[in-house]
Amino acid sequence: MLIKKPVNINGANMKLVVDPEATLSDVLRGQLHLTGTKVSCGKAQCGACNVIVDGKVVFACATKMNRVPDDAVITTVEGIGTPTNMHALQLAFVKHGAAQCGFCTPGFIVSGKALLDQNLNPTREEVRDWFQKHKNVCRCTGYKPIVDAVMDAAKLVRGEISVEDLSFKMPEDGKIWGTDYPRPTAVGKTTGTIDYGGDLGIKMPPGTLFLKLVQSQVSHANILSINTSEAQQMPGVYKVVTHKDIQGKNRITGLITFPTNKGDGWDRPILCDEKVFQFGDAIAIVCADTEEHAQAAAEKVNVELEVLPAYMSAPEAMEPDAIEIHPGTPNVYYRQGIVKGEDTAPLMEQADVVVAAEDLYVGRQPHLPLEPDVALAYYDDKGNVQIMSKSIGLELHALMIGPGLGLEAGKNLFLSQFPGVGGTFGYKFSPTIEALVGAATMATGKPCFLNFNYYQQITYTGKRSPFFMDLKYGATKEGKLVAMESNWAVDHGPYSEFGDLLTLRGAQFIGAGYAIDNIRGAGYTVATNHAWGSAFRAYGSPQSFFASETLMDMLAEKLDVDPLELRYLNAYRPGDTLPSGQEPEVYTIPQLIDMIRPKYEAALQEAKSCSTPEKKRGVGVSIGVYGCGLDGPDGAEAWAELLPDGRVQVSTNWEDHGQGADMGLLATSHEALRSMGIDPRRIKLVMNDMNLAPAGGPAGGSRSQFVVGNAVVRSCEKLVQALKKGDGTYMTYDEATATGIPTKYVGQWSTATADATACDADTGQGKPFASYMYGVFLAEVEVDTKTGKVRVVKMTLAADVGRIANKTVIDGQMYGGIAQGVGLALTEDFEDLKRHTDMLHCGIPYIKDIPDDIEVMYLETARDLGPHGASGVGELPLTAPHAAIGNAIYNACGVRIKQLPALPAKVLAGLQGRDIPTVTRPIKDPVMA
Amino acid sequence: MLIKKPVNINGANMKLVVDPEATLSDVLRGQLHLTGTKVSCGKAQCGACNVIVDGKVVFACATKMNRVPDDAVITTVEGIGTPTNMHALQLAFVKHGAAQCGFCTPGFIVSGKALLDQNLNPTREEVRDWFQKHKNVCRCTGYKPIVDAVMDAAKLVRGEISVEDLSFKMPEDGKIWGTDYPRPTAVGKTTGTIDYGGDLGIKMPPGTLFLKLVQSQVSHANILSINTSEAQQMPGVYKVVTHKDIQGKNRITGLITFPTNKGDGWDRPILCDEKVFQFGDAIAIVCADTEEHAQAAAEKVNVELEVLPAYMSAPEAMEPDAIEIHPGTPNVYYRQGIVKGEDTAPLMEQADVVVAAEDLYVGRQPHLPLEPDVALAYYDDKGNVQIMSKSIGLELHALMIGPGLGLEAGKNLFLSQFPGVGGTFGYKFSPTIEALVGAATMATGKPCFLNFNYYQQITYTGKRSPFFMDLKYGATKEGKLVAMESNWAVDHGPYSEFGDLLTLRGAQFIGAGYAIDNIRGAGYTVATNHAWGSAFRAYGSPQSFFASETLMDMLAEKLDVDPLELRYLNAYRPGDTLPSGQEPEVYTIPQLIDMIRPKYEAALQEAKSCSTPEKKRGVGVSIGVYGCGLDGPDGAEAWAELLPDGRVQVSTNWEDHGQGADMGLLATSHEALRSMGIDPRRIKLVMNDMNLAPAGGPAGGSRSQFVVGNAVVRSCEKLVQALKKGDGTYMTYDEATATGIPTKYVGQWSTATADATACDADTGQGKPFASYMYGVFLAEVEVDTKTGKVRVVKMTLAADVGRIANKTVIDGQMYGGIAQGVGLALTEDFEDLKRHTDMLHCGIPYIKDIPDDIEVMYLETARDLGPHGASGVGELPLTAPHAAIGNAIYNACGVRIKQLPALPAKVLAGLQGRDIPTVTRPIKDPVMA
Repeated sequence: MLIKKPVNINGANMKLVVDPEATLSDVLRGQLHLTGTKVSCGKAQCGACNVIVDGKVVFACATKMNRVPDDAVITTVEGIGTPTNMHALQLAFVKHGAAQCGFCTPGFIVSGKALLDQNLNPTREEVRDWFQKHKNVCRCTGYKPIVDAVMDAAKLVRGEISVEDLSFKMPEDGKIWGTDYPRPTAVGKTTGTIDYGGDLGIKMPPGTLFLKLVQSQVSHANILSINTSEAQQMPGVYKVVTHKDIQGKNRITGLITFPTNKGDGWDRPILCDEKVFQFGDAIAIVCADTEEHAQAAAEKVNVELEVLPAYMSAPEAMEPDAIEIHPGTPNVYYRQGIVKGEDTAPLMEQADVVVAAEDLYVGRQPHLPLEPDVALAYYDDKGNVQIMSKSIGLELHALMIGPGLGLEAGKNLFLSQFPGVGGTFGYKFSPTIEALVGAATMATGKPCFLNFNYYQQITYTGKRSPFFMDLKYGATKEGKLVAMESNWAVDHGPYSEFGDLLTLRGAQFIGAGYAIDNIRGAGYTVATNHAWGSAFRAYGSPQSFFASETLMDMLAEKLDVDPLELRYLNAYRPGDTLPSGQEPEVYTIPQLIDMIRPKYEAALQEAKSCSTPEKKRGVGVSIGVYGCGLDGPDGAEAWAELLPDGRVQVSTNWEDHGQGADMGLLATSHEALRSMGIDPRRIKLVMNDMNLAPAGGPAGGSRSQFVVGNAVVRSCEKLVQALKKGDGTYMTYDEATATGIPTKYVGQWSTATADATACDADTGQGKPFASYMYGVFLAEVEVDTKTGKVRVVKMTLAADVGRIANKTVIDGQMYGGIAQGVGLALTEDFEDLKRHTDMLHCGIPYIKDIPDDIEVMYLETARDLGPHGASGVGELPLTAPHAAIGNAIYNACGVRIKQLPALPAKVLAGLQGRDIPTVTRPIKDPVMA
Repeated sequence: MLIKKPVNINGANMKLVVDPEATLSDVLRGQLHLTGTKVSCGKAQCGACNVIVDGKVVFACATKMNRVPDDAVITTVEGIGTPTNMHALQLAFVKHGAAQCGFCTPGFIVSGKALLDQNLNPTREEVRDWFQKHKNVCRCTGYKPIVDAVMDAAKLVRGEISVEDLSFKMPEDGKIWGTDYPRPTAVGKTTGTIDYGGDLGIKMPPGTLFLKLVQSQVSHANILSINTSEAQQMPGVYKVVTHKDIQGKNRITGLITFPTNKGDGWDRPILCDEKVFQFGDAIAIVCADTEEHAQAAAEKVNVELEVLPAYMSAPEAMEPDAIEIHPGTPNVYYRQGIVKGEDTAPLMEQADVVVAAEDLYVGRQPHLPLEPDVALAYYDDKGNVQIMSKSIGLELHALMIGPGLGLEAGKNLFLSQFPGVGGTFGYKFSPTIEALVGAATMATGKPCFLNFNYYQQITYTGKRSPFFMDLKYGATKEGKLVAMESNWAVDHGPYSEFGDLLTLRGAQFIGAGYAIDNIRGAGYTVATNHAWGSAFRAYGSPQSFFASETLMDMLAEKLDVDPLELRYLNAYRPGDTLPSGQEPEVYTIPQLIDMIRPKYEAALQEAKSCSTPEKKRGVGVSIGVYGCGLDGPDGAEAWAELLPDGRVQVSTNWEDHGQGADMGLLATSHEALRSMGIDPRRIKLVMNDMNLAPAGGPAGGSRSQFVVGNAVVRSCEKLVQALKKGDGTYMTYDEATATGIPTKYVGQWSTATADATACDADTGQGKPFASYMYGVFLAEVEVDTKTGKVRVVKMTLAADVGRIANKTVIDGQMYGGIAQGVGLALTEDFEDLKRHTDMLHCGIPYIKDIPDDIEVMYLETARDLGPHGASGVGELPLTAPHAAIGNAIYNACGVRIKQLPALPAKVLAGLQGRDIPTVTRPIKDPVMA
């Protein structure tokens, strides 16, 4: 049953034939392939699909075609500007780095266009109100660069500035390192022309199969039978794939399991065979000619289950009577100890002051990237399986899923990224649906495409693992820390990959930033039936710092000293070491505190003067530290090659999830090649495809700029050296080939150069990272004493991330990380499987939830080992901002939130003197059967 | 087996996943839905698919993806300009009416862009050379407006003219009638944003089935069996539809069969059941999820045939021993007599001069629209079958196919046109594949889409029916015609629809233009197994005039008088009648000859001075006349309605095939509404959809401007009259509704107003048309005496088509019709089923085959009955230009070509005194069993 719908889209008159029940986004994307309009939440919560219909901003994902008026005039991002004819908004978004992953960008551009159409002189607050009204959500930028861009676009349209003012001006020295050179993908992102996975899937060749999953609706069960016969007969169905069709081990492996881990790491099925371990687990894949047919058939797959008790938190799974989730492996399957310096028990006894908390907790923060998970697979012309996805660890993931599929990474299995990756924030450090599309392609021989909806994104992919933490400090009466005792249990969900590593992070970062010579404690990795744990920006450190930075504030209070000065007193000075015993590569925390001190003092003043009984203002601080790289030895490779046309091709898999890998690679390689006088536009980047580029290693742990960057510099320097002639000029391609000089150079680098070593499982001691990032956070909040609702008024960060590769990109990382910290502090959680299944109810911050006033100050301490002096970047801003916010809440109203998020109900309970609802229980001495 | 292909398309970097064997057009259109790039010939013959790859113009239809270089920079029409940001070429194409049907336009724009990129100062000849080199074919415009547009675009880019110079300037009186107002669809056509059938098919909702046909490979056979079981099991196949699935009579009817026709008109199957009647007949339809799957399965349908003798021309089918193609109906199934004035036998005896030819023949001219045939069908939300196609007779076709499908036109069967229709030139006056998609949708319940390739376009659709003609004139020694005897046989192929009507055209137009009081003769409609006859621009008259205008030249030679003056002598003056006995509504041929005489005399001089033994120049003239409308009573309906927003909506089915129905309707209604002071942009046209607009009748026979235009004027005049207030101003919508004045008015008009009557079958006498068009053609040619190749140097036309509705549109009709006349004269034919199956081998004229010098002079004689004084337009320029060319060839080199096309081999044979190959034999007194 179809209808005809006459519309004008981007100036073109069309008579479309549509299903009246289809959404406008279905039609724009699926029928017209106008894929600039993105679909994210799918339920009018996020504005990614915003288009203009008859002058009004509407959610294309929630507008059925029978509600689109005949002859409606519709504008999508493609109609606002094109790569060769960009609109002021697009130019300004490029200028301000307002597109990071870029997935929300078309929605913002469209929404912004509608705003400027009706108000060409908006104030910043009007811009923020507008995006709030139209629910435009950005998860990367912290919103500030977007508001900056709209303000500048308005100026350009008003004629107050010129296009040149929004364009990059090449400095006279030709150096783009450290400038605001726009990232290469910015034009594609602002014009909606870069293809994300869902876009490329739509644009696949005919015959591509569309997949839908049959997923578990319970959290723990034995599978008795899977009956696909009815589904197999449904229209358009090619095949229903189950575990029986999988040619390998049907398990995804985390590759390395610490030797003392009681599991073997082969616990995560591609398709469930004997058991279901968590809600959303994949049981079967329907491959059909359309998504609609696949979905209809998926509903006809009959799965018989024997439901088992589900353990939805670490404490539950640690109960002595809990059954083993993976039979044969105890639920508490790994212990990470920390033993530094002297025994702490006597020190605690002797300490002037002891402060402790047994109920510290950070929740299951959902990543909430705007782009839902997506992947496709096909056989290439050599018969190899090619998988495209949002993977931020191509070689790693090929190795992790290869055995399960019966394929060999780099031999007959190749991974690559989609051109656009709409944010991962770490969840794609683990493979998610790669193995599913691979299995489907192997079972059908056909190209296969699987695009999650947002419900699936939330319920299927990994989450930040909750930490249940006990912590105790002993200190002198002056406040000098003398001992720390820490215990933490990690709810890692049912799958063990990287769970031991995450647990180690507690040893590395609880108390980091401070000289603490004596530490004792242990962390435990616990299997549960709640969401499996995956990496999340600042991996393990937000939990760790929430404990140690909250307790630091409690100590300051107990000592009645200023919390910033207490931190200053304890911050690393030369000779001090990290909890791992490693010496920091630079000792800049005191300088960072010096930088922030005037802001802090002004903030205290302002809080005092602005506080009212209804709206109490408060100020809090925290310190954050994070290492750059994988633990211990961590390497990368890059190639630099002179092309016949004189361009230089730089190749490496420096995966991008919106953080700016393209800009990082360009800035790093250009600076290394600059002596040749090359224009950055003459550098060709070949990235993120196992078929084309060498391994850079996964793009996580703030390692890429540092580790991959070093490999890039090596390759470029070799090229420069090889081509340099006696007179200081450089050989052309023809000269080089004529004289037999190779034109391609391999650069490799490893943290082994810096004697990096893994940490010991019992003691946590080692030299895990070759470089670190340091930051001091300052939060200013306002607590509504009637509702308990907390508003963050301003965030300030003094950061040392080494030399800055690109100011715009790094600013964007800082703003975005801080915004995620605001969410982590106040709203974000994935706990309730019924309620926490969309963006809104997971607590994603909208623009008005994030302060427009975010200030980042840099201390550019060059790192000797870093490429052009750089360290890492991306994790720092999410290490500890939430802790500063928690401390500010206490400072404002005296309510100590020890379990995040600090929901209004909790704050209000504290304000009213009631018990604050808790999820924790002490986790000392767990049973490790 | 797919490959990854990095490319930049229209400024956007993409990494596509493609089949290496797929063509670039497959990818651009099928994967990216960049449907501005059209596919026509599919074999690099026509340039419709031209795109720029790395600075070079390439045929996207013939470029496989494995030949597209990595990182290729590709520009399609979408990248050159958009509706809101048009390129100079697009503006100039709009200005010059260089886009008629618009299907070739993107290819020309792209090709032109590449030209201007490398030569911003091209001469006209350089422009023509460029389009010749890149094989850009246009079938509508005669190329001249395209060259005009490119020249102006270059001026704009050079800055010599402004955008305003290329824009329409509204006259002070606000009158657009008679101006060069650009047609409403011009922007969509020049930007590639208007959807043609193949584009809309690609953009259908998911679940749409793609169809492929099983077609006969022989011309005449009995069907023994059709086995679909293997095909039904092929991947992606939903259903294989055969005649058994068709719920109605499985026959397409021409509705009206003349009473003396020996057939019943129910001879054309939707899907062949008992017999195959011609090569290409449809036997089964495979409905699958992709075109590729449908095609693969179509090859597995097993059809058993008993091959019968095939009669491939009228004379063969007229042989006494020929079996009946439709058993029970003689192959010669209709006789149309002409009996006017006295018996001609004695007059011939007495005539001073008699001239005769028994071997006149005009071949099976193929229409060669750029767009191959295409249709889709679906069930709408009311359960009705909706069919979209290139139909130029919506209500007519619904009536013609309804009984065959078991549906009722306007009740549960509705037809509409695609937004863009890429030329028909009359072939779509008959339904073609409408019933096939309808049958498929009824058999599957699904939306169904069928897109022909060009081979199918040529072999499946109807053609101009060849006429085999004998003709004799008797005249006085002064040259005054006293008698004419004519006999003609029409090879109508196997299907009878309109065949009797076409045969009548011989009676109406052989000898038309001249006062011939006494005529005897007869025409015969003959069933054959060659291509079925469908309407073609100037329907029946090009054959008729070729006979009478060739013989007129032979008479002039015999009398040794100037051929133009002989025509002047015999041309209609008041009191004279057409062969039908009808009085012309105006007597303007002598004036037209007066207009053209100076050109003629100059041409003779020039021919004389330019002729060389190698390149002989010659001049020829001819007269053309055609009636506007269907024979006898012919009506139309239109609605005019004041909308709440003050716009006026004008509705009627005035089908467009590129001729400019949009402009005709706008100009006609605007002129009728002009007293209200309405801006043309405030008139909303609702056209070409049985669901929305009233019947205008088919868009053929130059009837629309005249017949539909009259209905439009009536409806608008009623509206104007109703809304006019006492003070001379007009009511608003609110005023009208408040005072109970209706806002919608129905206008109807019929030629019955002018006492039109059908012609008699025995005598050919009647008053078939209410208005005519008149023209005098002047051809100047050059014959290469070494090769026999003829080059048309110039064409001139003096035309009376009444008042001109839109100068640009009507110029375009004239140029295009003349160009088709050049093709008809020299190259075009569909005879050899093996060779004549593509555009090139069917003899389509390329730009260098058509003179750049085409001059059209108008005598604007207002028609009393015409809307705003207009008559018809479109058929006139193809009535007789080929006859003038034939006469010019004779004038140049003394070779009389009596059988078209005048291929070089024929001319050379004549030049060398050899027999010219012939296809004819006398057709007098055929057997009509």
